[in-house]
Order: sequence, then structure tokens, then C-alpha cells
Amino acid sequence: MTPPIVSSVSETREQLDRVRRAGKRIGLVPTMGALHAGHASLIERARAECDFVVVSIFVNPLQFGPSEDYQRYPRPIEKDFALCAENGVDLIFAPETGDMYASPQITFVEMTRITDHLCGAFRPGHFRGVATVVLKLFNIVQPDFAYFGEKDYQQLCVIRRMVDDFNLPLTTVPVPTYRESDGLALSSRNVYLSAAERAAAPALYRILTLAREQIASGEKDSAIIRSAAMNVLAAEPLIRVQYFEIVDPSEVQPVATVTGPVRIAAAIFIGKTRLIDNVAAGN
Amino acid sequence: MTPPIVSSVSETREQLDRVRRAGKRIGLVPTMGALHAGHASLIERARAECDFVVVSIFVNPLQFGPSEDYQRYPRPIEKDFALCAENGVDLIFAPETGDMYASPQITFVEMTRITDHLCGAFRPGHFRGVATVVLKLFNIVQPDFAYFGEKDYQQLCVIRRMVDDFNLPLTTVPVPTYRESDGLALSSRNVYLSAAERAAAPALYRILTLAREQIASGEKDSAIIRSAAMNVLAAEPLIRVQYFEIVDPSEVQPVATVTGPVRIAAAIFIGKTRLIDNVAAGN
Repeated sequence: MTPPIVSSVSETREQLDRVRRAGKRIGLVPTMGALHAGHASLIERARAECDFVVVSIFVNPLQFGPSEDYQRYPRPIEKDFALCAENGVDLIFAPETGDMYASPQITFVEMTRITDHLCGAFRPGHFRGVATVVLKLFNIVQPDFAYFGEKDYQQLCVIRRMVDDFNLPLTTVPVPTYRESDGLALSSRNVYLSAAERAAAPALYRILTLAREQIASGEKDSAIIRSAAMNVLAAEPLIRVQYFEIVDPSEVQPVATVTGPVRIAAAIFIGKTRLIDNVAAGN
Repeated sequence: MTPPIVSSVSETREQLDRVRRAGKRIGLVPTMGALHAGHASLIERARAECDFVVVSIFVNPLQFGPSEDYQRYPRPIEKDFALCAENGVDLIFAPETGDMYASPQITFVEMTRITDHLCGAFRPGHFRGVATVVLKLFNIVQPDFAYFGEKDYQQLCVIRRMVDDFNLPLTTVPVPTYRESDGLALSSRNVYLSAAERAAAPALYRILTLAREQIASGEKDSAIIRSAAMNVLAAEPLIRVQYFEIVDPSEVQPVATVTGPVRIAAAIFIGKTRLIDNVAAGN
């Protein structure tokens, strides 16, 4: 059975106030729709830990740059509702843009340092938009737990730090990246790929695992690890690298020498499609 | 009887969780201490509307500029506790700076437009610091109602708009400015004034009421109204004007021609002491 789909902010508040008063633990899975098995794994985790699971579906204009894919971002809303129904979601919050940004928005979440590298360096304003809309969703839904995929690793770090820095009364739960059998991380943007591009895409995960293996074998020099990755991608004519960085796992700052736990993160373009991925290493 | 004084963020959360589960409405009066009759009027209003009143006392370093009075800001903590006790406060939250900024803080509330004029123009970063700490206090206390004096009018507008823009689940309540019999608005900074300076200080409220009367008499030209105010202050050798502005009452933008409700706001220096005040007009 399809769960209730609520578009109104105030009605969502009312319904969830009742849930909260009944003493139920609320879990939130914030999404931009175009749901896939990665989202299903977030929902599954939320169901295991919470009494009531909310999925929000909102393609947030604030986090897209002017030359980015806000307009063409996939919006298969009926499929999304079906996936939520199949996975036991209790409420779908699918607001209109005009209701989410009713004021209009002149208040933003700004972060320093943690947004300086990786995607933050190439998508100015992106994490401001992400953090702002997630804070709004947190305040509307007031979840006890909120679930974020590790695939968007810098986003996870941004949210986790926002929760700490703003003393938000909830727990952020990271969920491991869901991958195809050839290693490609699931992403709503994978649908943009042609067959040839799709065949090339697993190289992203391959260079990350290669880097992880080098670190496991004792290599500590980030420049050497990056060179090896670049050499592999040089053989992929469809792929253009945006960044490949080895960073500390909490504030996402580049490390020149690997001496402890790190995150290896990369972004590539295949044609017009931008894909990101990351793995843990040095543990 | 003195109410419980809690310095720990986590213990405050625990105590207030119990209050909330008991179904009580929580009111928060955020202060920097140095409490006076103006604060007492905020507490009184909170007591009338809520079941449980929290006063926070925290001199927030984030909202002071490097050349401002953070170090010498008055901290008469025993007198503050006594005022809270006399006024029926249920809990005093008086955190340490290290507990409030444990992370350390790299996440901030940034606002555009509404902070461009009045104090925002002269105290860069001030409202970022105010909004950030108030958001943290809101998330720790999770009040149903929060009380702010109209004396700090731009601050009130900033908080009110932050509550709207971030969809915060609480109501902001403005409380009228409390004045001495000669019109001087109560402020924790009035203690800085010498006897001669104190005697000159009511000129601030006098120019605001003069401007209000001009508007009530039909004057619409903000430049003419400002000139009249400047002429009055020219006769006050101890006073230096920082700003005198007529602004719209919600986004605090200067208006050249008064055609509806406005706020008249001014900031002056008397010696080293900076005083602000404002009145409504054009209603």
C-alpha cells in the first residue's frame, strides 16, 4: 500500500506531531527522488532503527549551480512512490518549491573549511544549498535519526558537522554505498549514461580501490597514489577527471602523507555526466 | 528560591526532555546576563504564556567584534540569579563557552539583505554571531515560545526571519522596550555611563519620538526627518551619531519616503558607550 504522500509543510508537521506524541521514534531519509537500491538500503536501515520512517522527495533548486542539471534532473515520481511503498515507508513528504521556500529564503547555513575541497571547490554554493535545505527538513520532520549515504561523503561530513555545531537534537546515521556488481556506485545520475559511457564508468571505483590497496601495502605519499590513479584513467578516453583527493575523514582536508584513517574521493565527467565516489582507507 | 542553574548542555537537554514529556509548554528568554527590568518584563511575559520558563545566560563571544566590549561586558552573575529567582524562572541555563562551542564552530547562520543596514552595517559578523548562538540555544532548549525585546529591533527581525526561513518549530514573541521615566531604554550597557553621560542619554529617545511625531503630522521625507534629528543632537556635545535610519519593519531596508508602517532606529556613542533605540511609526 502506498504511504500517505503529503506536500504541505504544515500538514506534515501535524501528522508527525501525532506520531511523536505517540512516543514513536521518527527516522528521516532525505532524498531528491529518482530512488534506487541505494535509497532502499537507507530506508531499510531506518526501518530497523525507527518506529516511523519518513522519506522526503524534493529536488532542491538551492543546491544546483546555474550550469548544472536542475531542470533535467530525473523526476520519476510514480516509480519513487512505488519504491517507498515496497520498502515500508510510513510517510512521503514531497513539498512544492514554493512551500519549501515560502519566505523567500534569505537565511542560509554557511560552513567554512569543510567545504573548501572536493565537490565544495567545484560547486560553489552547493553545500550551502544542501545544508540549508537539510536543516529545513530537519525542523519540519524533527526526526530522531536521519540517514545519509556514504556515496556523497562530503555531504555526510557537512551534515554531521552541522548537527554538532548547531546542537541539533538528532543522530546522523551514515549508510555504506550501494554498488552494482561491477563496482559502480548507484546514483540517480547513472541514467544519463550511454551504453559506452556506462561501460567506462566502473573505472572510477577501480582507481579508488587501487589507491586503497596501495595504502594497505604501505604507500603513504598522496602524490604517488594520485599519479597511479591518473595513469589508469589516462587509458579511458571517455573520462575526464575533476578531482582525486585523499582527505581526512572528518573535516575533509587534503593529506599529503597518509598516517591514519583517510577517505579517498574522486569526481569524473563521462560526457556531460558528473559522477563521484569514495572509499575509506588507512584504517 | 533560586531555580536550578545548569551549565551542562547535555544535562539541560535531559531536564527539559522530562519537562517536554510532561506536556509542558517551554518558554525561552535568551540573555547575555546583566539582567534588568527589561529582561524581567520578558520573563513575566513568558510566565504568562508558558508552563516552564528557561532563561539562558551566555555572553556570546561570536557576536562581538575584535574592538568591542566582550571582555568588559558586565557579568553580575549573583544578581542575575537573584532576579531570575524573584521572577519565577524555572531553570537557568548558563553554559561555559567551551561547552557551547565544543566542536569548534565552523557552521554559521548567514543572512543577506536584512543585516545590510543599521547595526549590521557597523558591526560586521555581529548578526551572524547572534543568529548562530540563538539557533544553538533553540536546539538545546527546544522552546515552544522564545522572547526578544524590541529594543534590539534588527535582532528581533533577524531571529523572526530565521525562524521562518529555517522552518523552526517555535514562535518568536516580541516584547516592548522597557524605559526609564526619562525615556532611556534599559540596556545592560547603561552601567558604563558617567553621570554626565547618563544625563545626556535620553536625547536618543527624544529624537526618535520627535521623528515619530513628524511622521504622524504628515512628513514623509526621510531626509527631512533625519535632518531635524541631527539638529537636535548637534546641541549635545557628548553624543556622536552612528546612524539614524527609517526602515521597513520586516526586512529593515531604508525607506526614502514614508508611505506606511516604518521603524525609526538610531545608534549613538556617548563617550565609549554605544546605545541603540527604536520606535514604530507610520501606523
